[in-house]
Amino acid sequence: MQIDTLTIVGVGLIGGSVGLAARSRQVVRRIIGVDRHAGVLERAVQNGSLDEGSLDLAAATAAADLVVVSTPVDQIAAQVVAAADSCRPGTLVTDAGSTKAAIVREVANHMPPGVSFVGSHPLAGSEKNGPDHATAYLFLDRVIVVTPGENADELAVNRVCAFWRALGGRVQLMDADAHDRAMALTSHLPHLVASALAGILPAELHMLTATGFRDMTRLAAGQPALWRAILQSNQEAVLGALDRLDGQVERFREALLAGDANELERLLWQGQKVRNTLPP
Amino acid sequence: MQIDTLTIVGVGLIGGSVGLAARSRQVVRRIIGVDRHAGVLERAVQNGSLDEGSLDLAAATAAADLVVVSTPVDQIAAQVVAAADSCRPGTLVTDAGSTKAAIVREVANHMPPGVSFVGSHPLAGSEKNGPDHATAYLFLDRVIVVTPGENADELAVNRVCAFWRALGGRVQLMDADAHDRAMALTSHLPHLVASALAGILPAELHMLTATGFRDMTRLAAGQPALWRAILQSNQEAVLGALDRLDGQVERFREALLAGDANELERLLWQGQKVRNTLPP
Repeated sequence: MQIDTLTIVGVGLIGGSVGLAARSRQVVRRIIGVDRHAGVLERAVQNGSLDEGSLDLAAATAAADLVVVSTPVDQIAAQVVAAADSCRPGTLVTDAGSTKAAIVREVANHMPPGVSFVGSHPLAGSEKNGPDHATAYLFLDRVIVVTPGENADELAVNRVCAFWRALGGRVQLMDADAHDRAMALTSHLPHLVASALAGILPAELHMLTATGFRDMTRLAAGQPALWRAILQSNQEAVLGALDRLDGQVERFREALLAGDANELERLLWQGQKVRNTLPP
Repeated sequence: MQIDTLTIVGVGLIGGSVGLAARSRQVVRRIIGVDRHAGVLERAVQNGSLDEGSLDLAAATAAADLVVVSTPVDQIAAQVVAAADSCRPGTLVTDAGSTKAAIVREVANHMPPGVSFVGSHPLAGSEKNGPDHATAYLFLDRVIVVTPGENADELAVNRVCAFWRALGGRVQLMDADAHDRAMALTSHLPHLVASALAGILPAELHMLTATGFRDMTRLAAGQPALWRAILQSNQEAVLGALDRLDGQVERFREALLAGDANELERLLWQGQKVRNTLPP
């Protein structure tokens, strides 16, 4: 895969890492970044994520062959449509948003002729933010979900898949709604729970936490505004996932109340079995 | 601190690590381990955790100056009492159990004259089990809670504290009930939640998990029998902690349902603030 100009809209951890990975794997000739913050663009040019930064979305996308929109999830659809308006025919637009159905729906019917949008979600990230934490290896061996949607241009889908593979990712095609339901269980619910567990800890117990509590609350360090938008954009599926968790917690509670050692161990075995069969 | 003979009852991850740490820091002259499994004792002698292994609790504790009972939490009280029966006057007995109130209560009034029990809980561990995963550094800079209880022999308490400090730990004296309530929030509830999160994940979604889900379910890999006993021995406090978590999750649910972005962000900030002020 060889791309001439890649434009990254929103140069944070993900956007910066797309730049570094594309450069280190020689996938692109030129990388332009667009952000609202000039300081972010400067740092991203300095650390090699970008060749040049721009505050002007239209100018930066006019020259693009591929546009990756990696802004917060509630801004992606609008940025995709705005970027597409400035793109030449033949340009491909994708994103890196944590939810897909709302974005695919909002973007549909707003793309100019010859410009294609194919949604993506790299299952990679960190509780850290900003291009200073970007790494060329963020996508290596990570699953990248690509959600073609109905009426997808097959060539465009193939090019998006090839791009993520060129960055080291393992591409999985999925329906956008199925993706969002899956992420509610594998990502959004865990984030909500991490935040709730952290939020109820009284200050006087901070010194009594160990590695278990740290692990269980690492996600809570994520940016609240980003995660508020993710949870809201997947409201229904997150509520459904919460109900499933409530049901399982209720089983634990009843077993504890009843002193039912067998049922408690069965529930713990059920969790251990899943945990021990997760991919690395 | 210099001890002649240390006897470790229950040679798992914690017991093996007590042996390795005591040896590497030259705190003891001789280390005897007691376990039900001869193979465990052999491996612990081979990796340096023990000088010798014994299947005979009475014989192994008769020569001890300090006994550390590191069996599963539901066996500790009985093992402490059984060990104490064979101890010479002047011997000190402690444990490494994750809950303290039930153990302190069950041991009280069962110690022979001249033998002291002081409860301990090193806030250190791993989801891995057995002496093969033991390390001399397990207690380094970790908090070790020591629960003197009423009528505690001050000299015995000081010696137990000195022992854990000699292994590199930071000792904190606490009331046993306060310890158990704290651990319900910092350790037992997180474990239960990790298990529940893992338990509800359908097999077809395993491949869609990333580092966040792995972190949030690491604890679920712990031994079910061990954790069943811990949860049961702290039933009331764990149920109380579950209620607190339920309350916070309910706030998330209501904010999501109402589309209340401000309240969602407030809850996420609350979690982030705690997380960012936890000790390393």
